[in-house]
Parts: sequence; C-alpha cells; structure tokens
Amino acid sequence: MNIRLDLQYDGTAYHGWQIQKNALSVQENIKNAIFKITGEEVNLTGCGRTDAGVHAINYTANFKTNSNIPPEKFAPAINSKLPKDIRILKSLEVCEDFNAKNSAKGKTYIYKILNSKSENAFLRNYSWHYPIPLDTEKMQRAAAAFLGEHDFLGFSSSGRSTKTTIRTIYALDIEKSGDIITISVTGNGFLYNMVRIIAGTLAFCGHDKINAADMEDIILSKTRSRAGITAPAQGLFLREVYY
Amino acid sequence: MNIRLDLQYDGTAYHGWQIQKNALSVQENIKNAIFKITGEEVNLTGCGRTDAGVHAINYTANFKTNSNIPPEKFAPAINSKLPKDIRILKSLEVCEDFNAKNSAKGKTYIYKILNSKSENAFLRNYSWHYPIPLDTEKMQRAAAAFLGEHDFLGFSSSGRSTKTTIRTIYALDIEKSGDIITISVTGNGFLYNMVRIIAGTLAFCGHDKINAADMEDIILSKTRSRAGITAPAQGLFLREVYY
Repeated sequence: MNIRLDLQYDGTAYHGWQIQKNALSVQENIKNAIFKITGEEVNLTGCGRTDAGVHAINYTANFKTNSNIPPEKFAPAINSKLPKDIRILKSLEVCEDFNAKNSAKGKTYIYKILNSKSENAFLRNYSWHYPIPLDTEKMQRAAAAFLGEHDFLGFSSSGRSTKTTIRTIYALDIEKSGDIITISVTGNGFLYNMVRIIAGTLAFCGHDKINAADMEDIILSKTRSRAGITAPAQGLFLREVYY
Repeated sequence: MNIRLDLQYDGTAYHGWQIQKNALSVQENIKNAIFKITGEEVNLTGCGRTDAGVHAINYTANFKTNSNIPPEKFAPAINSKLPKDIRILKSLEVCEDFNAKNSAKGKTYIYKILNSKSENAFLRNYSWHYPIPLDTEKMQRAAAAFLGEHDFLGFSSSGRSTKTTIRTIYALDIEKSGDIITISVTGNGFLYNMVRIIAGTLAFCGHDKINAADMEDIILSKTRSRAGITAPAQGLFLREVYY
C-alpha cells in the first residue's frame, strides 16, 4: 500500500527535511514515528529538500507499507509520535507509482520580509527583517522578468547536481500587508537556493541596489554575482506542491 | 532619569515576566542587559506579571538610571544584549513619578483559539487548539454579560493577594478569521488568570457546555466552579497597556 502524507512543519528546530548524520531532520522524525506504529523501516520520499530553518505549510511525502492500518488513520497515529512542530494534516492511499518527488509537477513557495525599522519578537523565525523601506512597485516590475522559461543558472547555488538549470516560472507576485511583504512564486521546479536568491534580488530592486529594468539582462547573463544575495532561510515557506 | 521601555516578547521560552529562582524570566533578561550597558543594578518595574508561556505584543516597563545614555538609545543598546524573542520597541524619558505598574489605567489582552480539526505546526505556541466547532455568536452573546463593573471573584485563581476582586470590563469582543477565533478584552485591571478563565468560559459557551444566557448569573455567583476551565497560557497575549 502506497501512503501519501500531506504535512506541515515549522523548520526552526530542524536541519531541513533530509536525514543527515548528527543533525535533526524532519524526515528522520517522521520515519521514526512510522517505525513506532508499524515496526517497519519505510523508505520515506519527500517532495524535495528544504534547508535548515525553512518551513513548509504544505509538504507532501509518501511511503510503502505492508501494515493494515486504514490509510486515513496514519495521520493521527503518526502525529501522536511526532513533536508538535511537525503535523501530518492528512494521510491517504495513492496508486503504486505515485512518488512525492518524481510525480510533482510544480510548487509554490512564499517568502516573507518584515520591512520595518523594529524587529519583531514573534516573526524572528518566520521572516527576513529588512529595516530599509522597500519599494514594492519596483519589486513587482522586476518580478515580471522571471516569468516563463529561463536558464536560471545565475539564480542557483552550487552544491547539488541537476541535469538542467532551465526552469519555468508561472507566477511571481509581491503583496504588502502592514509591515510584511510576501513574495509568492510558482514554478515547475526550483534550483538549489533559487527562491531565496530571487527574494534577495527582488529586495535589492526594492532598495534600489539593483535596477528593476536590468532584470531580464541579469537573468540572461547566468552570472550568480549579478543577482542579489541569498535571502535568509527563515523567511521561506513551501506553500503547495502540485501533482 | 526615569526611562520607559515599550517592548514585546514571545513568552514560549520564559517562565513569565517576573524574576524567579531557577527559572528563565523576561525581567531578568532585560535587567541583565541594562546592567551590561550601564553597570547599574536597576529596579525594573513591569506593568504586571505574565504566566509562563504568555506573550506580550506591547508591554511597558520602567527603571531609574544615573547613566547619561540618551533615552532613545536605550532601545537599540538593550536589544543588542537581549535574545531575539524579547525586543525593546522604544525607550523614552518619562516624569519621575511614572511607574509602569501603578500608573497603568487599563489593559487590552487578546486570546487566540485555533478552532480547527487539525493542529497547526506554526500556531502551537500561539493559540489554544480547540478541535470542536465553536459557535461565535453564542460566545459574543455571553461576552455581553461581562461588560461593566463586577466582582470577578469567580473568574480568578487563588495564589495572589489583591485588595478587591472588583474590576471593570470596557470591551469584550469575539472575531473569527479563517480558523482563528480572537477574543479581545479591555478592562481597568485583571485578576490572576482572569482572562484565561474568561476565554475558557466563552469557549464552553460556544461549545454549548455552558448556556450563554446563564452568564450573568454565573458572574454574580462568584463561584469559580461555575465558570469554564482556565484556557492554556500559550493563547494569551498582552496587547496594550494604557496610561
């Protein structure tokens, strides 16, 4: 039986999704919880890696099991063995060839910037504090250049192998509500650190450190140093995975 | 020089505002930060105690100092010595007889209930998860009985001495946004655990465990056992103090 889990996690305490030696990961916590309820060492596939401190509002994973626990009962059972900063929202049976990573057709991420002079005690782990006022119109103008299919080599960090650096971005929006600027980006896939580099670059456009009109050229240049900084992990949330 | 601090804190990691032996407190952290920048062991007065896990969006404190640091510079200086879950928003000089506790004329608290079947990884420390659907109209109806001056003896926990248990409530509102019910209460003062007992009682009204029509009678009875439970600390936020 192939079980799909829809889950969320506050990434603050974790070294990301993926199991690593000597570091706390979300994957290991869930794998251990499944072991406690089924006695099985399952192969738990996640929809993608996330860095240390990155959050997921809706993350998808799957695993195969010989257990006869009813599919929908996995969610409460696994939750009972998990810390409160990881929550399974739903469990269901899916067809045998569903794979949370390979079946994903696209993802939406959001990136939150706290654009205020003062820091905020409640948002310290959930936003990037940027004290200089940002011009969101300039950010939105720059965002338009990212839409469509591009080689995003200049918007990736080295360290993970990938067949191609070409990706398609379907939507990239900037919204401001009070002191919070939310960048929302949907694409067919993202390179390592790509969303955080897009967020850092858009912030630099809003701050006039990068000219929004140059964005098309910067993307075409495929040169990492022409883009902005990699925005910090804690502002990033995986919002949705599409299958 | 009498310095007023407007500050906020995420209470998750603290055993409340007040200094205690063998427990982490917000007051001790700020007192230590002031010592680091002035070399003075100041008497730091807070606007009131908060329980372990309770938060403050706007908390007021004051202290007297012989330092010649400009008043507005205390905020950044103290922040540089504080953990990120406590933030000084503003520092200013006030008249010699201002006392954050005794000068307070009223306070607003908010209490957040996550009224959804599923728990939420991000709200675990900032709301009370109540999985049974609550009828907010019934809660609002019950809330009306609290307005005005009453003896709130039945809505307090023992353990702290107070001259009188009579308090005046100016406003008590219930708002629902998505899965979040926010109770907002303003009064001239609150007894120990009073807001948490009001929140627990209103939840029970929304859940039909207490009849909203009985609320006037329950308050008049001054009997703790007729009110609802003390709602958990992590849903409570001090919103504002009035002087």
